[in-house]
Amino acid sequence: MPRLAERAAGPRHPSSAELRLVALPDFPLVSSGDDLAGMTAAALTRAGLQLRAGDVLVFAQKVISKAEGRLIDLATVVPGERALELSRTVQKDPRLVELVLAESRRVVRTAKDVLIVEHRLGLIMANAGIDQSNVADPADGEFALLLPEDPDASAARLREQLGVLTGSTPAVVVSDSFGRPWRVGTVGVAIGCAGLAATLDLRGHTDLFGRELRVTVVGHADEIASAASMLMGQASEACPVILVRGLASQAAHQPAAALIRPSQQDLFR
Amino acid sequence: MPRLAERAAGPRHPSSAELRLVALPDFPLVSSGDDLAGMTAAALTRAGLQLRAGDVLVFAQKVISKAEGRLIDLATVVPGERALELSRTVQKDPRLVELVLAESRRVVRTAKDVLIVEHRLGLIMANAGIDQSNVADPADGEFALLLPEDPDASAARLREQLGVLTGSTPAVVVSDSFGRPWRVGTVGVAIGCAGLAATLDLRGHTDLFGRELRVTVVGHADEIASAASMLMGQASEACPVILVRGLASQAAHQPAAALIRPSQQDLFR
Repeated sequence: MPRLAERAAGPRHPSSAELRLVALPDFPLVSSGDDLAGMTAAALTRAGLQLRAGDVLVFAQKVISKAEGRLIDLATVVPGERALELSRTVQKDPRLVELVLAESRRVVRTAKDVLIVEHRLGLIMANAGIDQSNVADPADGEFALLLPEDPDASAARLREQLGVLTGSTPAVVVSDSFGRPWRVGTVGVAIGCAGLAATLDLRGHTDLFGRELRVTVVGHADEIASAASMLMGQASEACPVILVRGLASQAAHQPAAALIRPSQQDLFR
Repeated sequence: MPRLAERAAGPRHPSSAELRLVALPDFPLVSSGDDLAGMTAAALTRAGLQLRAGDVLVFAQKVISKAEGRLIDLATVVPGERALELSRTVQKDPRLVELVLAESRRVVRTAKDVLIVEHRLGLIMANAGIDQSNVADPADGEFALLLPEDPDASAARLREQLGVLTGSTPAVVVSDSFGRPWRVGTVGVAIGCAGLAATLDLRGHTDLFGRELRVTVVGHADEIASAASMLMGQASEACPVILVRGLASQAAHQPAAALIRPSQQDLFR
């Protein structure tokens, strides 16, 4: 049984004494093709912030999708029969429903105003993550924004580019807001990450009294996304990039795909 | 449609530019009957921290349950017939299952190693939140720790006591770690709070382009709990109290009970 003095320094959780989260100020609006890494490096400089080892940058999914050109003009979408039928149930624009179906493996639940699907990435989420808030000026038409093609790859690219631009390679998390069964309200969730472990597996470690921990996988990148979400402002693109400083650095790299529960281990699909 | 200049200062989300989270160092082990508010005030003083308006203190459920005497000696528990039967399915100690059933309204899902219930407080959670990690020295016997009787009331008491002791009344969140459908890993969740709004309802506000936001209730206290969880160390009692500084202060008070989705609005029970 470990002695008390050994506990605080134990390998349990990469905890540290203090965390600091900073919203990069005056981040410009992002458009298709924009150099998001360059914009982020510039915003860091403007804020007088220099990246350090262990820093994490959390990006709102929305700015990554925009930079990657995932904006769809609804006028170009022709809903199929299935989308037309489903749109009557969920009472959403059939063109939006068509996009949701095209981005999904299957429909999980439907009700009035509710369309929960399994996204092609495996994420169980409302509307396949397709968003119509803050995506475009309605004067320009009706648009919808899809998730990035591969958010883990987007995170890895941003991480690498930021390393080149700033000389210090941060971990990167791509966050989105998810509703949840059983609980009211959305929380930030990691749909992509690079340079950190999306989950922390503490099985085999012992508690304060030497008792072995049993179910102790932590949704680490999701907790980072939730923390950052508080500074992003839920519906706004005003603060789409958050610097998280003070997390203990981790050797393990693991993509956010690891946060998706395999369906055969899921009692709630 | 609001002009750009008005947006950043809009009422959407109480966002601020920077958040700081500090784990109160050297927090002593907590036992039944301990004065948790007094211990917290002392820990703040030791750390050279003075509470300010807008500060939030997040307490791990475990220390509140301990202080409130919610530790149960399993030797005193006699499992009934239903607990004996269920313990064979879930392969858990029948005395623990007896406690889980006594704390619950109903069983939601069972499998080997899995016992998900609706706690009497309405929370859908594994094992009714009953924990055996870090609760007692095995040399003293086998113990299990129940959730506080009323975590919102615990938060309100701590808030009031801390206001008297320190001269500044913080918001208080009681956090626990929850597993989730669809996703791997636990995250911090608010099971009690006082002095802040557990959820933020942004419906009726507009996006960057004046488009009305539709589904925009944010699980605010859950995001606070997830952020604090990163500093607590998942299985450890080493850092059970976290100071969160920098959240915009809110007029509305709303208990964590508001984070529990009413069953008639829940598609996943």
